Amino acid sequence: MPREDFSLSYSLRVRWAEVDHQGIVFNGHYLTFFDVGITEYWRAIGYPYPDALAAAGCDTFAVKSTVEYHAPARYDDVVDVLVRVGRIGRSSMQFLLEMRRAEADASETHLVSGEVIYVIADAQARRPTPVPAFLREAIARFERIAPVAG
Amino acid sequence: MPREDFSLSYSLRVRWAEVDHQGIVFNGHYLTFFDVGITEYWRAIGYPYPDALAAAGCDTFAVKSTVEYHAPARYDDVVDVLVRVGRIGRSSMQFLLEMRRAEADASETHLVSGEVIYVIADAQARRPTPVPAFLREAIARFERIAPVAG
Amino acid sequence: MPREDFSLSYSLRVRWAEVDHQGIVFNGHYLTFFDVGITEYWRAIGYPYPDALAAAGCDTFAVKSTVEYHAPARYDDVVDVLVRVGRIGRSSMQFLLEMRRAEADASETHLVSGEVIYVIADAQARRPTPVPAFLREAIARFERIAPVAG
Amino acid sequence: MPREDFSLSYSLRVRWAEVDHQGIVFNGHYLTFFDVGITEYWRAIGYPYPDALAAAGCDTFAVKSTVEYHAPARYDDVVDVLVRVGRIGRSSMQFLLEMRRAEADASETHLVSGEVIYVIADAQARRPTPVPAFLREAIARFERIAPVAG
Repeated sequence: MPREDFSLSYSLRVRWAEVDHQGIVFNGHYLTFFDVGITEYWRAIGYPYPDALAAAGCDTFAVKSTVEYHAPARYDDVVDVLVRVGRIGRSSMQFLLEMRRAEADASETHLVSGEVIYVIADAQARRPTPVPAFLREAIARFERIAPVAG
Repeated sequence: MPREDFSLSYSLRVRWAEVDHQGIVFNGHYLTFFDVGITEYWRAIGYPYPDALAAAGCDTFAVKSTVEYHAPARYDDVVDVLVRVGRIGRSSMQFLLEMRRAEADASETHLVSGEVIYVIADAQARRPTPVPAFLREAIARFERIAPVAG
Repeated sequence: MPREDFSLSYSLRVRWAEVDHQGIVFNGHYLTFFDVGITEYWRAIGYPYPDALAAAGCDTFAVKSTVEYHAPARYDDVVDVLVRVGRIGRSSMQFLLEMRRAEADASETHLVSGEVIYVIADAQARRPTPVPAFLREAIARFERIAPVAG
Repeated sequence: MPREDFSLSYSLRVRWAEVDHQGIVFNGHYLTFFDVGITEYWRAIGYPYPDALAAAGCDTFAVKSTVEYHAPARYDDVVDVLVRVGRIGRSSMQFLLEMRRAEADASETHLVSGEVIYVIADAQARRPTPVPAFLREAIARFERIAPVAG
């Protein structure tokens, strides 16, 4: 997706502890980077995780993650985590994510793409509960491209 | 998939450092568990990573990971990582994975399912290269269910 | 310290994700290994963490960690984490730890030594509280070398 | 130590994956934070790790780490990692580190203190080698308080 299709961009620098013997970020760590991006998304829409959800008696639980690896990130790379909400269902939300690295020649390298789908659940029972209206509204206000209802 | 559809089962115990404030394993760590299972798969077919591949001048690079979360693993849980090869393409291999926890009543809880797809690549150039014949043969010998050619 | 000075030995295998670009375990991960060893220590004395402590209204909080690095552990190494309690104070406990790798010639390589000191604290207020008598007794029964009172 | 005794301060935000079931950062992760601070230190003195060292045929290997835990960092905390070099020996360097959190009332909470001692080693043989003169000089220029020769 073009960069302007994402609503949020967050920069982070790859740590030594995240790079493996091949000199590239271990494949699982991208989900940590996605999670950092999603943290910033909640903050950006005005509902920092987990307080606003907790106040509404609910929490998020991951139900699916996908990562497609296009090019490796390396130690000390400054990379952008791009985030948007792609789809909001009755009790689920799909985040779409992409990571990019700016190059010296002003081009960008597309590192990974992926998604994380969460279910909104009752914080105690951990059973699915409808996405609260305040969240739907905050996301609708924030997104450049309206999430698909699904 | 039924347990007998997997060719390898490896047990591990969930560490304190892998569990988050919700008291459940952080979603990204399952890819580390998958990786541990895949390490054992290479060993089980007689080609421990990365030496046999390196001797053939090649290495593996992840191109896609998927995790579906069914039930959370918790601190100190002993869990099984189940592994099989689902598909072998010209230069790619798909691992299918599942994690389960044995319960006190002898039932099993299905925790997560997923896949990790690797491309076999030239170790230096990091460009795709055909899956070496010795690997195809070792996998064919090891698998209960023949991998799909893809 | 000689191996027989430790009361517990726990084996684990180094994961790919724990090894850095130098091909050796990242220095911080040894504290995760120490933590795994300490988990096994609590289990071995009959009080698996955190339930027995929680039942007594208390928990443990790390106050100091030290790691001395003698030789690096590498990917796929099977290593032993050795644990004993070195000192028990009024509200603190010092674990002494060592990690070793068995070599093909039956010698052992001493990888790291260290300590982790915990304070026993009230679980709610997180203020130091005396080490419960049941713990002191369980440790005294388990240890080959009586912990120093301190 | 007072904040002005440190030569470098680097801010980072605590990630969800770094916080454990107690709601606080797992004790081992502070060494990852220290490592991030040390990365920035090398950059700040003009010799980003590992290139300048590699060009001189050497690398750094941790020989000792210490962390003293004073107060816990929590999810989403913005924390400062403070770094200075405390001592330079013939072939070793001691980094002193501290982490702090700014509070709403403009006070600071002292989270942890520690040290990481590295040996400078030949990159191939991994045997200690004298600290290169260019490093000694860069550190001397950068530090507010002259490192102790040790």
